[in-house]
Amino acid sequence: MMAALIMRIVLMVALVFGAAVSPVGATEREALLTQPGVYGTFAAFQMDHDWWDLNGEARVIAVSEVKGLIEQFSQKIVIESYLLRGLSDHADFMFRIHAHALSDTQQFLTSLLGTRLGRHLVATTYLHGMTKPAAYAAGFPESMKQALQSPAPETGTKSYAIVIPIRKDADWWALDQDSRARLMQEHTQAALPYINTVKRKLYHSSGLDDFDFITYFETDKLEEFHSLIRALEQVKEYRHDRRFGHPTLLGTIRPLDDILELFAR
Amino acid sequence: MMAALIMRIVLMVALVFGAAVSPVGATEREALLTQPGVYGTFAAFQMDHDWWDLNGEARVIAVSEVKGLIEQFSQKIVIESYLLRGLSDHADFMFRIHAHALSDTQQFLTSLLGTRLGRHLVATTYLHGMTKPAAYAAGFPESMKQALQSPAPETGTKSYAIVIPIRKDADWWALDQDSRARLMQEHTQAALPYINTVKRKLYHSSGLDDFDFITYFETDKLEEFHSLIRALEQVKEYRHDRRFGHPTLLGTIRPLDDILELFAR
Amino acid sequence: MMAALIMRIVLMVALVFGAAVSPVGATEREALLTQPGVYGTFAAFQMDHDWWDLNGEARVIAVSEVKGLIEQFSQKIVIESYLLRGLSDHADFMFRIHAHALSDTQQFLTSLLGTRLGRHLVATTYLHGMTKPAAYAAGFPESMKQALQSPAPETGTKSYAIVIPIRKDADWWALDQDSRARLMQEHTQAALPYINTVKRKLYHSSGLDDFDFITYFETDKLEEFHSLIRALEQVKEYRHDRRFGHPTLLGTIRPLDDILELFAR
Amino acid sequence: MMAALIMRIVLMVALVFGAAVSPVGATEREALLTQPGVYGTFAAFQMDHDWWDLNGEARVIAVSEVKGLIEQFSQKIVIESYLLRGLSDHADFMFRIHAHALSDTQQFLTSLLGTRLGRHLVATTYLHGMTKPAAYAAGFPESMKQALQSPAPETGTKSYAIVIPIRKDADWWALDQDSRARLMQEHTQAALPYINTVKRKLYHSSGLDDFDFITYFETDKLEEFHSLIRALEQVKEYRHDRRFGHPTLLGTIRPLDDILELFAR
Amino acid sequence: MMAALIMRIVLMVALVFGAAVSPVGATEREALLTQPGVYGTFAAFQMDHDWWDLNGEARVIAVSEVKGLIEQFSQKIVIESYLLRGLSDHADFMFRIHAHALSDTQQFLTSLLGTRLGRHLVATTYLHGMTKPAAYAAGFPESMKQALQSPAPETGTKSYAIVIPIRKDADWWALDQDSRARLMQEHTQAALPYINTVKRKLYHSSGLDDFDFITYFETDKLEEFHSLIRALEQVKEYRHDRRFGHPTLLGTIRPLDDILELFAR
Repeated sequence: MMAALIMRIVLMVALVFGAAVSPVGATEREALLTQPGVYGTFAAFQMDHDWWDLNGEARVIAVSEVKGLIEQFSQKIVIESYLLRGLSDHADFMFRIHAHALSDTQQFLTSLLGTRLGRHLVATTYLHGMTKPAAYAAGFPESMKQALQSPAPETGTKSYAIVIPIRKDADWWALDQDSRARLMQEHTQAALPYINTVKRKLYHSSGLDDFDFITYFETDKLEEFHSLIRALEQVKEYRHDRRFGHPTLLGTIRPLDDILELFAR
Repeated sequence: MMAALIMRIVLMVALVFGAAVSPVGATEREALLTQPGVYGTFAAFQMDHDWWDLNGEARVIAVSEVKGLIEQFSQKIVIESYLLRGLSDHADFMFRIHAHALSDTQQFLTSLLGTRLGRHLVATTYLHGMTKPAAYAAGFPESMKQALQSPAPETGTKSYAIVIPIRKDADWWALDQDSRARLMQEHTQAALPYINTVKRKLYHSSGLDDFDFITYFETDKLEEFHSLIRALEQVKEYRHDRRFGHPTLLGTIRPLDDILELFAR
Repeated sequence: MMAALIMRIVLMVALVFGAAVSPVGATEREALLTQPGVYGTFAAFQMDHDWWDLNGEARVIAVSEVKGLIEQFSQKIVIESYLLRGLSDHADFMFRIHAHALSDTQQFLTSLLGTRLGRHLVATTYLHGMTKPAAYAAGFPESMKQALQSPAPETGTKSYAIVIPIRKDADWWALDQDSRARLMQEHTQAALPYINTVKRKLYHSSGLDDFDFITYFETDKLEEFHSLIRALEQVKEYRHDRRFGHPTLLGTIRPLDDILELFAR
Repeated sequence: MMAALIMRIVLMVALVFGAAVSPVGATEREALLTQPGVYGTFAAFQMDHDWWDLNGEARVIAVSEVKGLIEQFSQKIVIESYLLRGLSDHADFMFRIHAHALSDTQQFLTSLLGTRLGRHLVATTYLHGMTKPAAYAAGFPESMKQALQSPAPETGTKSYAIVIPIRKDADWWALDQDSRARLMQEHTQAALPYINTVKRKLYHSSGLDDFDFITYFETDKLEEFHSLIRALEQVKEYRHDRRFGHPTLLGTIRPLDDILELFAR
Repeated sequence: MMAALIMRIVLMVALVFGAAVSPVGATEREALLTQPGVYGTFAAFQMDHDWWDLNGEARVIAVSEVKGLIEQFSQKIVIESYLLRGLSDHADFMFRIHAHALSDTQQFLTSLLGTRLGRHLVATTYLHGMTKPAAYAAGFPESMKQALQSPAPETGTKSYAIVIPIRKDADWWALDQDSRARLMQEHTQAALPYINTVKRKLYHSSGLDDFDFITYFETDKLEEFHSLIRALEQVKEYRHDRRFGHPTLLGTIRPLDDILELFAR
């Protein structure tokens, strides 16, 4: 009977949003995930306790509504989902959203919060940043450039994701471009041994939130990731991190269906 | 039927507040938005979860009451509205209010909080400041003065608004006027390239809240805004920002009706 | 009918507390408000959202109970009321209470919190301080002493009140009395131009809360108050303010009846 | 009828806990309150708002249950009670508990939180410390030792109690024993004038909570206590207080019955 | 009757999870608790007040569900339980979980939060770390190595557990390995006298949460533990602890059944 209900909802949603829903094409998706000039938003949510006062059927309907919504928005933006529950306190799940405009991201999140499930969500952390061309790499030695460009081919999917926002001190920004480049070369050198086991992505966020950068990591080997952070703590550039983490968000990469199922049952 | 109901409410509100409600005239509005000696308040609110326990009709009535209230107050103060939901955590929307007296602003906000909708609002952040004549511009070089006075004509409306409150350190205030002017000239020079894409407005808030300044930005191009902030982080004056943001409020400029509609449906 | 109800309550309260309730006499009131050795408490409250679930009649009764209580205590302590709502986030109203003993203040506040209305109050901020003879004025130049003693006669009532608590750093307390006096003379000199437009009162709070001083201001001209704070930020003594505000409480001076009416309707 | 009910409860409690309940004997109590090697816990609680939704009878029963519990535990530990309500924000009352083992204190507090009243308590602050022999007094001059040992006989009970936790900076702990002793001698000298009016007690808490010390004060004369703190702020040792207060807990010493009665009526 | 109910539940749970549930074998358990390369999670929870609105039977069923869950997961991970209630504010109990992969820990905690009891839990603090071979011990003098390897045999179980997370400053990580080793030798020397009374375990957490280390202690003699912390505060390495505690978690080691029973009755 529950299965029948879900079936009905799925049909209903399909009708509402039209049969023509087509997610961002593979090329466009690739562009959003790899090109500079794209906005990345990390949005972490917690489910309030009242949610569980709903009966099971109401929860299933509410979850289905969210799935439909995400399908609808997948034409414009790339939405990835993470389970933070059990690893990060004060947050249950997180979206990483890539979009050409933050207004698209806002439209999605506003719609999400307006759903039956959304009314039970508490937005605990929003971080926004932009992707940009590498700022210092041009002056790096050739060998380093090559190493950066040819990590081993990815084997399978990464399991864990970590988000660490960073605020630099005023001294950092007062350094000239060359001095910063030298420090970043040392930083990059320290990170090189982990290039094949820990995937990194950098977002620039000055002015968009209370940080200067959002650093995002994916890995199968958390111990390698931990060693990478230790290595980065030991280079001079680390002295200029006025704030590092606070919050640190740790979770696992998970299909949305898996995550929502936790809240449907 | 819902439409009929809304109609009735609108009529009711019109009767209550009289037909003679006339918003601040264009000239007066211009004065409030451009002249020194005006008080600016940034008031960010979050809707509590109980709101959604009201039935749809009750929500429509409550929203209508707020619209009437704002119309009523538009004779004395200028109220602009922003949607923060989906971009700033812990806040759903924000008003920027310009008034000749903060007591007028208080009267409006107190009335707002006393409405049926207002009883579900949590006031998350209030920031207050005053507009003042430019403090340092008199000594700037002529070319800089001209550049500041002739930004390209505005084309269309700006989409995004950002509020960043700032507290200066004691060293800043201990500098003599000339030293501060020199630092502000460097600051202004760094900001000049963005004069046509990012609109700025400064409010002085020492004593009125826990900050010294509120900086307010509007832009269509968030990437330009981000670059502006990066440029400002690199001048010497930035060293004197003991607190920058915390909170940073990011939202989109939106008619009140759009925002309230989110909470009516 | 509501009027009749209120009438009945007023009578009831009058019976309960007796007809002989006489507030602190004018002389005693003057003494509490002007003499050293008096305790001042700033108590800011927020009304919880459940309050509005009471029906109108219950709210009127609850408000009336508070009025009776305040009348009763007005024999021992001086209670002044401020509306913070719409100007300070996280607080709706504030009492400033002057008493010869903090135990009297506690008795009043405990009774208040025990009323039907009080059960819906959240005490957001309590600050306590003592009035003391001026610590440094003795050594000030004669002209400064005269200026301090002869502000222009007060014209009408002040509208706004601001509370800024301050914690000094260890360096301040390590200075000898003469050095502190010199710095306070510079501070006082900077404040003199505002003596007629901004009324100030100082409370000493070391040990009674987490601050060293509570500074209290009243003014009709907020722009003058703002200029005063700016002037005080520019003297050397300001460097020793380890914490200034946090919270800054801004409100308007309002009869208790006005404030309670907001919560009765 | 209420009286009859209370009577019944008292009897019931007496039966449950047995007639043989005998509080810690006078000698043992003296030992717990004066000897080194005893654990002191400061536990501050706030009553949640739901408490008042219980009917009066249920509250009376719940309060009675707590009284019985405290009587039961008075065989092992010494429990003193303080009313913080109206003087400290975010706390209604506090227990100071002296025990030979923190596990006894835990057993009591866990039992308390398990009572009908306890289910409505929010534990806002727990501080733990140990009493130890005076660390520096051995090297003090004879006159100081004598002054410390012969305060004027206590006259009557003290009214107010203040708890100020302290965290020292790393520089303090890096000083050798002699240097610390010299600084503590200056500290003690500054405190001597208040030895008869302000009673002090020191608890060592490094590792047991986030502080190094808990300082506890009792006095009838708050103005003397305030002067004592001012005097202590002016000695060199104060520079090593990385955190002083936060929270500062201020209350009045009150029999438990008085405090519980506030929540029963 | 209650006993019968519990019996039924236990049977039910046994049926659901199968008779074949076998906890981690002794060898595997030993490995998880002693070897490097294992992940340790400290997860502290608070029970919300709504829990007590459930009737007794519902609570017994909910508690039983948790016990079954823990039995089920004991095949993969080692779960130890601690009662924080009455000793740490804002937390009722804590799990220390050792696992080969944090994803296993997440699966357990997510399942826990999905139980009927779990829906009433607030996750107040999660800390994650890894066990690693001793970093500096290789260069310690022989006598110190021996002392570290041969603590007196443990006598009985330890009663108390304390968790203190630590964040090092940038200066610490900028030191070369030799300098850090020298400082750690002084640190270890200071700790040696407590080797038989206080059991310690170190977890490395850089990148996994906002700390660099989690230090975990077990002891029967809290006064010895306190002295150990005091001794560690006095060595040079302590100057590099930018954050020490915040939170400090203090509790007693308790079988899960004891802890759950508090919430069942």
